[in-house]
Amino acid sequence: MISSKLPKVFYGGDYNPEQWDEATHQEDLRMFRQAGIDIATVNVFSWAKIQSDEITYHFEWLDQLIDSLYESDIFVCLATSTAAHPAWMATRYPDVLRVDADGRKRKFGGRHNSCPNSPTYRKYSEQMADQLAERYKNHPAILVWHVSNEYGGDCYCDNCAAAFRMWLKQKYGSLEELNRVWNTSFWGHTFYDWDEIVPPNNLSEHWGENHSSFQGISLDYARFNSDSMLDCYLLEYNAIKKHIPHAVITTNLMGFFKQLDYFKWAKHMDIVSWDSYPAANTPPSYTAMAHDLMRGLKDGQPFMLMEQTPSQQNWQAYNSLKRPGVMRLWSYQAVAHGADTVMFFQLRRSIGACEKFHGAVIEHAGHENTRVFREVAQLGNELGALGNTLLDATVHAKVAILFDWDNWWALEKSSGPSVALKYLDQVHKYYATLFRRNVQVDLISVDTDFQKYDLIIAPVLYMVKPGTAEKLEQFTERGGTFLTTFFSGIVNENDLVTTGGYPGKLRNLLGIWVEEIDALLPESHNRIILKEKVGVLEGEYKCGLLCDLLHSEGAEVLAEYGDDFYQGMPVLTRNRFGQGEAWYVATDPEEPFLDGLLGYICEQKGISSLLRAPAGIEATMRSKDGKSYLFVLNHNAQTQQYHLDDQKGKELISGKFLEGDISIEGYGFQVLELS
Amino acid sequence: MISSKLPKVFYGGDYNPEQWDEATHQEDLRMFRQAGIDIATVNVFSWAKIQSDEITYHFEWLDQLIDSLYESDIFVCLATSTAAHPAWMATRYPDVLRVDADGRKRKFGGRHNSCPNSPTYRKYSEQMADQLAERYKNHPAILVWHVSNEYGGDCYCDNCAAAFRMWLKQKYGSLEELNRVWNTSFWGHTFYDWDEIVPPNNLSEHWGENHSSFQGISLDYARFNSDSMLDCYLLEYNAIKKHIPHAVITTNLMGFFKQLDYFKWAKHMDIVSWDSYPAANTPPSYTAMAHDLMRGLKDGQPFMLMEQTPSQQNWQAYNSLKRPGVMRLWSYQAVAHGADTVMFFQLRRSIGACEKFHGAVIEHAGHENTRVFREVAQLGNELGALGNTLLDATVHAKVAILFDWDNWWALEKSSGPSVALKYLDQVHKYYATLFRRNVQVDLISVDTDFQKYDLIIAPVLYMVKPGTAEKLEQFTERGGTFLTTFFSGIVNENDLVTTGGYPGKLRNLLGIWVEEIDALLPESHNRIILKEKVGVLEGEYKCGLLCDLLHSEGAEVLAEYGDDFYQGMPVLTRNRFGQGEAWYVATDPEEPFLDGLLGYICEQKGISSLLRAPAGIEATMRSKDGKSYLFVLNHNAQTQQYHLDDQKGKELISGKFLEGDISIEGYGFQVLELS
Amino acid sequence: MISSKLPKVFYGGDYNPEQWDEATHQEDLRMFRQAGIDIATVNVFSWAKIQSDEITYHFEWLDQLIDSLYESDIFVCLATSTAAHPAWMATRYPDVLRVDADGRKRKFGGRHNSCPNSPTYRKYSEQMADQLAERYKNHPAILVWHVSNEYGGDCYCDNCAAAFRMWLKQKYGSLEELNRVWNTSFWGHTFYDWDEIVPPNNLSEHWGENHSSFQGISLDYARFNSDSMLDCYLLEYNAIKKHIPHAVITTNLMGFFKQLDYFKWAKHMDIVSWDSYPAANTPPSYTAMAHDLMRGLKDGQPFMLMEQTPSQQNWQAYNSLKRPGVMRLWSYQAVAHGADTVMFFQLRRSIGACEKFHGAVIEHAGHENTRVFREVAQLGNELGALGNTLLDATVHAKVAILFDWDNWWALEKSSGPSVALKYLDQVHKYYATLFRRNVQVDLISVDTDFQKYDLIIAPVLYMVKPGTAEKLEQFTERGGTFLTTFFSGIVNENDLVTTGGYPGKLRNLLGIWVEEIDALLPESHNRIILKEKVGVLEGEYKCGLLCDLLHSEGAEVLAEYGDDFYQGMPVLTRNRFGQGEAWYVATDPEEPFLDGLLGYICEQKGISSLLRAPAGIEATMRSKDGKSYLFVLNHNAQTQQYHLDDQKGKELISGKFLEGDISIEGYGFQVLELS
Repeated sequence: MISSKLPKVFYGGDYNPEQWDEATHQEDLRMFRQAGIDIATVNVFSWAKIQSDEITYHFEWLDQLIDSLYESDIFVCLATSTAAHPAWMATRYPDVLRVDADGRKRKFGGRHNSCPNSPTYRKYSEQMADQLAERYKNHPAILVWHVSNEYGGDCYCDNCAAAFRMWLKQKYGSLEELNRVWNTSFWGHTFYDWDEIVPPNNLSEHWGENHSSFQGISLDYARFNSDSMLDCYLLEYNAIKKHIPHAVITTNLMGFFKQLDYFKWAKHMDIVSWDSYPAANTPPSYTAMAHDLMRGLKDGQPFMLMEQTPSQQNWQAYNSLKRPGVMRLWSYQAVAHGADTVMFFQLRRSIGACEKFHGAVIEHAGHENTRVFREVAQLGNELGALGNTLLDATVHAKVAILFDWDNWWALEKSSGPSVALKYLDQVHKYYATLFRRNVQVDLISVDTDFQKYDLIIAPVLYMVKPGTAEKLEQFTERGGTFLTTFFSGIVNENDLVTTGGYPGKLRNLLGIWVEEIDALLPESHNRIILKEKVGVLEGEYKCGLLCDLLHSEGAEVLAEYGDDFYQGMPVLTRNRFGQGEAWYVATDPEEPFLDGLLGYICEQKGISSLLRAPAGIEATMRSKDGKSYLFVLNHNAQTQQYHLDDQKGKELISGKFLEGDISIEGYGFQVLELS
Repeated sequence: MISSKLPKVFYGGDYNPEQWDEATHQEDLRMFRQAGIDIATVNVFSWAKIQSDEITYHFEWLDQLIDSLYESDIFVCLATSTAAHPAWMATRYPDVLRVDADGRKRKFGGRHNSCPNSPTYRKYSEQMADQLAERYKNHPAILVWHVSNEYGGDCYCDNCAAAFRMWLKQKYGSLEELNRVWNTSFWGHTFYDWDEIVPPNNLSEHWGENHSSFQGISLDYARFNSDSMLDCYLLEYNAIKKHIPHAVITTNLMGFFKQLDYFKWAKHMDIVSWDSYPAANTPPSYTAMAHDLMRGLKDGQPFMLMEQTPSQQNWQAYNSLKRPGVMRLWSYQAVAHGADTVMFFQLRRSIGACEKFHGAVIEHAGHENTRVFREVAQLGNELGALGNTLLDATVHAKVAILFDWDNWWALEKSSGPSVALKYLDQVHKYYATLFRRNVQVDLISVDTDFQKYDLIIAPVLYMVKPGTAEKLEQFTERGGTFLTTFFSGIVNENDLVTTGGYPGKLRNLLGIWVEEIDALLPESHNRIILKEKVGVLEGEYKCGLLCDLLHSEGAEVLAEYGDDFYQGMPVLTRNRFGQGEAWYVATDPEEPFLDGLLGYICEQKGISSLLRAPAGIEATMRSKDGKSYLFVLNHNAQTQQYHLDDQKGKELISGKFLEGDISIEGYGFQVLELS
Repeated sequence: MISSKLPKVFYGGDYNPEQWDEATHQEDLRMFRQAGIDIATVNVFSWAKIQSDEITYHFEWLDQLIDSLYESDIFVCLATSTAAHPAWMATRYPDVLRVDADGRKRKFGGRHNSCPNSPTYRKYSEQMADQLAERYKNHPAILVWHVSNEYGGDCYCDNCAAAFRMWLKQKYGSLEELNRVWNTSFWGHTFYDWDEIVPPNNLSEHWGENHSSFQGISLDYARFNSDSMLDCYLLEYNAIKKHIPHAVITTNLMGFFKQLDYFKWAKHMDIVSWDSYPAANTPPSYTAMAHDLMRGLKDGQPFMLMEQTPSQQNWQAYNSLKRPGVMRLWSYQAVAHGADTVMFFQLRRSIGACEKFHGAVIEHAGHENTRVFREVAQLGNELGALGNTLLDATVHAKVAILFDWDNWWALEKSSGPSVALKYLDQVHKYYATLFRRNVQVDLISVDTDFQKYDLIIAPVLYMVKPGTAEKLEQFTERGGTFLTTFFSGIVNENDLVTTGGYPGKLRNLLGIWVEEIDALLPESHNRIILKEKVGVLEGEYKCGLLCDLLHSEGAEVLAEYGDDFYQGMPVLTRNRFGQGEAWYVATDPEEPFLDGLLGYICEQKGISSLLRAPAGIEATMRSKDGKSYLFVLNHNAQTQQYHLDDQKGKELISGKFLEGDISIEGYGFQVLELS
């Protein structure tokens, strides 16, 4: 799609020349050319500069900037500037200011500072998008439109309260229904009038970050808040489309960002884009998983890497430099997982305010004779040479991990059974196990077509929404393998428990009944005792966190607990279901257990690794026009060896033909066009 | 007293059928009968259901519920529903909403949410009690009235401020006196008008949870807050008594709950009841101590165990299951310490909101085929078989530990000498020492008659109220043994230091002068060096936290400090006083020292252990009609042996006659009618 | 200067007889005489007592108090009582109450509670100073005036906001200039009207204690807040001077107190005074450094030790007693570093409110038979015997450490590169290295005359203000040695980065270019590898925190990094510059490296140690009238030996003549008049 705009991987990033003089801008253009940069994201935070009062706009500088970039063969990703409102707006229209979870009215400052239900914000942000689109609709420089920036945060003001009530009316129709799904007969919370409902925050139902007296209202407020911001996005989106029906419009997402249900958002984005900011000690598997989620948001379509740092960040506790080669490696990791752009925050480092110690292509030194610039330029040249070879290539995974924002919200708002239970931890454990095997994975929503997969894993599927259990049963019945874990099937879409026995709607599929759920103290463990070998699994393994106490109702018991009063109870079960099978892992096992278990299942299902390689060597594959491209990334600092079994092909950067035993340098990258 | 209502240990708990349909209710009744359940606490949180606006009440469902229970031979503990106000009330009368310690006006949500000085809350809660009492005054099902629920929290609104000023006027009469007892000449806080006084909170005198610039005002606010809630309780209490003079009225307390002075409250309760929620790692001695406090509130009268969980809680960090047998063991522990009821929260588990993961007699599975239900039913059958044997039996202790809420408040609001000094820790250390010896203990207030005891222990008696020193002197003079510790006798009832030398009013009794008080860093220690053997005590022991530097003024010095510049100063003293003796432990010693010291004192006083048994075997005794019942509880997971020296009798549950060497299974319980 | 008032070290402290009766006061006077006390600080917190409403003053008690003291030969340090406003003022004029960083309007309570821009506070505090000065201008008892008490805290109310805007207008003249220096084009913060500017706090630009989105506004608010309080001080100062032109006026400072730029304040103080409250585990070098800062505030003039505790504090977590001798030792440490007074908080211990557990000369026991009183009296007698010998003696240091409040603020408000970077830690590391060598040090500001020093050390000189680089170049050019460290020369006085290459304006002087700055994780280290021996330095040393990646531009490279991708890059450089040399330490080294490095530089520069002695023996020197006084302090608990090489003289306290091998007892003190 965006490949039609520019026949190569877009290369560039956020650019704020409004902080500099014209001479610096010219110098920037020279260096951009030198680095192979061909796209600049501009106007991200220029609202105050463009609009000095309710009716006065100043576009001349932006006209010149876009023209100047275009004349230097730099295309534009045009942001709408609405991610931080102007100070004058906050002073004159305080409804743009948020009220935080402690009920405190904010004052002007920071960014992401606008109430999503502020009439003023909605009016002027929509007008801004309208003005920009009208003005630049025919400008050839503009390849992509970038609405606002990194939507997030929340608000609890009276406008939000009123909008929340309206949202609830539309959802539930009647207070009777609302009282039912929120279970307000508990603690005497029955509502007799819509106006009695107040947003749930630290002044009402919440205490601490993750606790609510009423999960029902809290869950709905999370959905409402996500929807409110999506409404803001859509106002701008539609304003642009009105003028430019074929505009490519995005907003930059943030991977596993809890506040917004990106599956819902992605439906309204022409292309997904995101900002990737791993810390120095973030596991490569975690970054890979986030890329796969971003790819999964639009069912496998390529996405944009909108931001990453060329060198270091400023907002981590300890902002280590990316080691030589790491920026390049992580850029290619994005491409390996489906990105068709490589973009940075920021092209030139600002000299004042809180991001002045965030890395940039052009550092404070101001010239090209820096390690960082050299690495950027090297990558720019490589990407130029690759041309459009990889653009639009797709990933074909046989394994999917189910991910669901509602499940995330509901699970972590629950009180009990253990504060140590974190959804992302569990999802990542299963993802990382497949990552270590170099098995390609999709992250999918409950709405995705399940039938294209051989194996679907749903860690801690606490909430089972309407239709999901049926879809999983069909998937399994037709031969699919399904795996889920402890504390699954507990509640419905309203966080109301499915009575009659856990795992509720999954009970039939899994062939088990979970009678109780034990929470272990942080240092406590139980043991998983294999009844007989399952693949390489044998003997015993440690487990902890939660232990489901379950009974088989037809499922085969492959392992039992080794300790405590539930010693001998099933801990690993497999239920034959139609042509397929449904697995249940009743606790949180140690890594070797997961390696063995998923290894066994993959082998049984014929799901092969893309590459057998030493630890830290990652492999992915993208395909296009009948050709397959094998990406090999070495996340180790040292040179490693790996072996191509029956694959071979031309390595596109070096141009060398590779087969058999291959050496890859520390932080190195190879991409083979398989032949 | 309540034994006249039902000739057996009441068995049942909180029941909220308003969350369910009629079919479920019938199923509940069936299972209650099966489990031997004979009492249900209802209407705890139904205010909004009963009262839909200022003048409209809906009692029909409650009529039916009570009738239905009664028809199934289930009696009722009728709550007044006022522990959470309805949403409509918060919307129309915001004075019911609290203002928190940070000055934030709360919004509707949660529970314990009403300002105790709200005119609206007081009006409608009193009316509710009045309506309920009038309607059900003749209903034979109702055995106990349960006012509100777990009173607690605090408020700092303008209504509270005004009521506080009135409370102060009544207490002090003049501002001169108030200025004197608050020592307002310090930091220039002199008040010239009552209206200048504002509640002490994080906006005025407090910083952090336990620090106040002025202990005087903070201490009085703690008293005022406790009194304000007590006033709320009394409004309902009197409204009920107006209709039912012989009603048995309680409210469920919470053990060592800091905010409310339960000794003051208990005077206005017909029976004490409380909710016992030990964590998985709470020492059994701590739970035992809480039971003894509850028994002590009304000078030894039996109390109700109003709530406990059948299996697990939901609001701990890690909510482990109660191991098989533990629910039964802890139920009998309550009885062993004076409870005449065994009741649960909750009879059926709710499906939504924050307590859905709190255990229940009837779990989400909804049937009786669960471990939890089976254990509940087993216990129900046992209690049925016990009948009224133990009801009204009393405990006779020769040792008392003095406990005082004012002392707790004042001690922990003080700035210095050490943040590590916690009143409950110190009280529990002495209690646990006696617990390990199976010595029966009463927890008493300063108003209790001291003369019935042989030994009174007052850990960290920082505040000595008017008359207390004199009472202790009389007690000792007549032959009693008194023991107190470091940092005692420091202040009077207003937290004003008694000058002239610590321990102030206790100096004469103890025969010592404490010149200085050293605070040790967390890892630091000193040593206690015995001068000669004291019982089994000899050689040296570790101590820490605080070290009083003291001089004997007549007291015998039994041990001295071993280190630091106060090496050689007394650390353990005994003062002969009339016929008795007064001990002083000048620091915080390690456990073996306390075992030796209290062992020695008990032996000297002829205070015998109820049972010599391995660690983790607890014994208590209750007596009735000339018979003594020895309770033996095994808190270990493994079977243990113990020996009955010169006691023997019938074990009431098994019906076996026990003497000599006895075996008790892990988490086992035995109760012997001694013969 | 104050030596003309009383020909000896002033000895006394804070005295609050308004909390006591007349008999106690007479007893105090008796004990003061016994202890050699000759000065009492009175009226510190008596505003409410003196002024009962807008127009009514009550001075009689103060008249009597001052007279009574004077009759007992006790002089007076007269405070103005304005450090805590009266309750009536807060009730009637809420503008005196502060608004905190969370936007919460405070209520009456505590101290340091007045908004510095409150018209009411300014009016009545100035009037109070005026009234006091007029009334007591001729009273012979008064030696020193003490304005308010321990200024500090901050406010964010509307009056402060308005005053801040005015302060900004005066500083910047135009919004264009303000927008430029705050770099408001970042995140679209452009201001079009002064009234759009709101104070930076947790509701606007701040999150957490040390983070701001905009360092520019936050830095200016820190300056503004310091200036606002200075204005309050000056209103009182001028009111006193109007009546008593020769009054000696001070206010008690607090050492390294972050909120107030004491270098700016000291210009308006007739004498510096400060309150020294080391914790039990504060290193002696840290206290010494604070004394040296206080001496440096007025370019070496003697200062007052206004407060210290005789025994223990109350507001630390663990308030240990000062061991016997320690109060004396630390008193002499103050004198050794330039104090001409030794004063305590408090002379008599209060009995109520939060400082009742703070030590006092007269303890709660109320008599003189205490260890604490005896030690106070012993010191009083010694100081009496010393007479005026040491008064006005000065310190002559050849080494200076540059200290700058703006640098402190800006450095720690920056976002990145590491949260572990703390200015005081770095300053103290260099100070402590010199302390271990007993090298005399001055702490100086950027405005101090550099030419009198041989060596200037500026740890983490992140901010280089206008003129500072030039001054340092001149200093070095003329033969001085300059040393600075990593993360220096980064920004200008507005926290705007100096572009073109770090260390910016220091680049020429240092002969290096810092290309990148790596932040290490807490447990990570790199190594410093010496290229050849530098003094005793050889081999390798550990380093961490931050590592500058730098290139020599002429500087000699003495050591290189040992690890990571910047292995081999310079880590220690020396640049010959004119007659002098400029050193750069590119990372945070372990202690032995600093010992070796500063040892080498001192030897090269001929900067000798005052004394070679075992660890924990401190030496300083003060000189007067051609005589030198060597102070020797043993911070060890044990007796130590040291050797006088070519110094000898009379020890003034014992009267003994000392030379050669000397023994000094644990916590001992000696002062030699060198001959």
